[in-house]
Amino acid sequence: MKVVQTIHELRKEVERMKKEGLTIGFVPTMGFLHEGHLTLIERAKLENDQVVLSIFVNPLQFGPNEDFETYPRDLKRDEKLAAEKGVNLIFAPSVKEMYPHELSVSVHVKKRVNVLCGRKREGHFDGVATVLTKLFHLIEPNRAYFGMKDAQQVAVVDGLIKDFHFPIELVPVETVREEDGLAKSSRNVRLLPEERKEARHLYQSLILAKELIECGERNPETIIKKMEAYLKEHVRGKIDYIEIYSYPELLPIHTLKGTFIIALAVRFQNARLIDNITMVI
Amino acid sequence: MKVVQTIHELRKEVERMKKEGLTIGFVPTMGFLHEGHLTLIERAKLENDQVVLSIFVNPLQFGPNEDFETYPRDLKRDEKLAAEKGVNLIFAPSVKEMYPHELSVSVHVKKRVNVLCGRKREGHFDGVATVLTKLFHLIEPNRAYFGMKDAQQVAVVDGLIKDFHFPIELVPVETVREEDGLAKSSRNVRLLPEERKEARHLYQSLILAKELIECGERNPETIIKKMEAYLKEHVRGKIDYIEIYSYPELLPIHTLKGTFIIALAVRFQNARLIDNITMVI
Repeated sequence: MKVVQTIHELRKEVERMKKEGLTIGFVPTMGFLHEGHLTLIERAKLENDQVVLSIFVNPLQFGPNEDFETYPRDLKRDEKLAAEKGVNLIFAPSVKEMYPHELSVSVHVKKRVNVLCGRKREGHFDGVATVLTKLFHLIEPNRAYFGMKDAQQVAVVDGLIKDFHFPIELVPVETVREEDGLAKSSRNVRLLPEERKEARHLYQSLILAKELIECGERNPETIIKKMEAYLKEHVRGKIDYIEIYSYPELLPIHTLKGTFIIALAVRFQNARLIDNITMVI
Repeated sequence: MKVVQTIHELRKEVERMKKEGLTIGFVPTMGFLHEGHLTLIERAKLENDQVVLSIFVNPLQFGPNEDFETYPRDLKRDEKLAAEKGVNLIFAPSVKEMYPHELSVSVHVKKRVNVLCGRKREGHFDGVATVLTKLFHLIEPNRAYFGMKDAQQVAVVDGLIKDFHFPIELVPVETVREEDGLAKSSRNVRLLPEERKEARHLYQSLILAKELIECGERNPETIIKKMEAYLKEHVRGKIDYIEIYSYPELLPIHTLKGTFIIALAVRFQNARLIDNITMVI
């Protein structure tokens, strides 16, 4: 496994891969790898000749009050985990390397953003789409891997790739869960013991919605109300949102049909957890 | 020469070229080809195995009061001219093909825009950069050709390609001129006979600036004042601007050095003409 920090070295490696006719699977991350990332790597490994992992805490996608400075970083540990999983190349640039000066251009995301977590994170997805545009051109992957845990990000990337015609296949990878169903997240360790016990009910409320729909319920409002009641009964965390939208368009739907997402966010004392499921009917 | 209207057909042709290892030179146009375009095609022809020409009047780059609807179109004539010059493939999509729905993403140009003609064309370069991002991905050219007549557009595309790392070489092509020095433009026919005679002084004023600089003048203000006096004496058109900036950054400079541009716009009765030269000292 090679680790490169500069665009120049990265391009040399990518051009070599391309010349040899190797397919490239790309896993973009902000590092501090957890099981979710490792699942993306495994999947990329299965489907491509080479796996390129980027590790870059992208300042553009952090708001002024967000935790860019304190976001956890541990490149040495990440390198070890990536090597064990068979990653071929890590691109871990500095901020200066990616943004030597203020960019003259940026990507602005106009749809799929003012819902779910995006509603409170103005500009966040512009930052995501801008850095991905750079990384996509630098790495020229055949496939790019994203976890469905952040389903809104997947929807935005889907729009970016389709509307700009990037010759890249987006591969959404299912959320990895703990044994009790809780979606894996670096933030789970911040749950108090009692909260951790209750946290399984987030996924349970999604299962409840799924069952209602399987039994014929088609009214999103009814489903949301039942999920709300369930969550209020089972967790002490504060519900941030429970929302249902068409997927990946993230538009409101009055009667469930086609592909849609049921997503929620709950704020516990020291951690805000999100989860979702998508369904097709 | 092949002419395709759909993205599907275009991609089939591009993939065939790529598979055969052919290099692609790309000339993006809004059609109604004139000698300027033909010079771009000639140059692309010299430097690449295949030349792809796009003809698309891009609504995104027209302001609400601009002439999108009445912009001249003549695909049959364009096809004939392109075939004569040895173009291999024309991509002439409909608006519906390029924008089947409102895009979920767009490119926003933040630098190099609020000067020269861009000052009065808010959003124009966002539209240019957005359509080029789509076309660059669809055509995957090795080189893209732009005329220096619109030097600000070349500067914006330079920023787009560099900051987003498109694996494309930008080739700026020198302005084609009439015998008396007037930059060729479809709009020249709108000049009244007397205006046409005077119009050569636009280029003459740029030559004057060049000579002053060659004689040691380094103060942009002094040069602009002398150009202004010269133009006022020789043309009845109204000066829209005379500006000098670093190039391609388009930043103000107090003492001339490095690469810079001297650009002007003059409004005649039925036509607004622009011209520029770039210099290195």
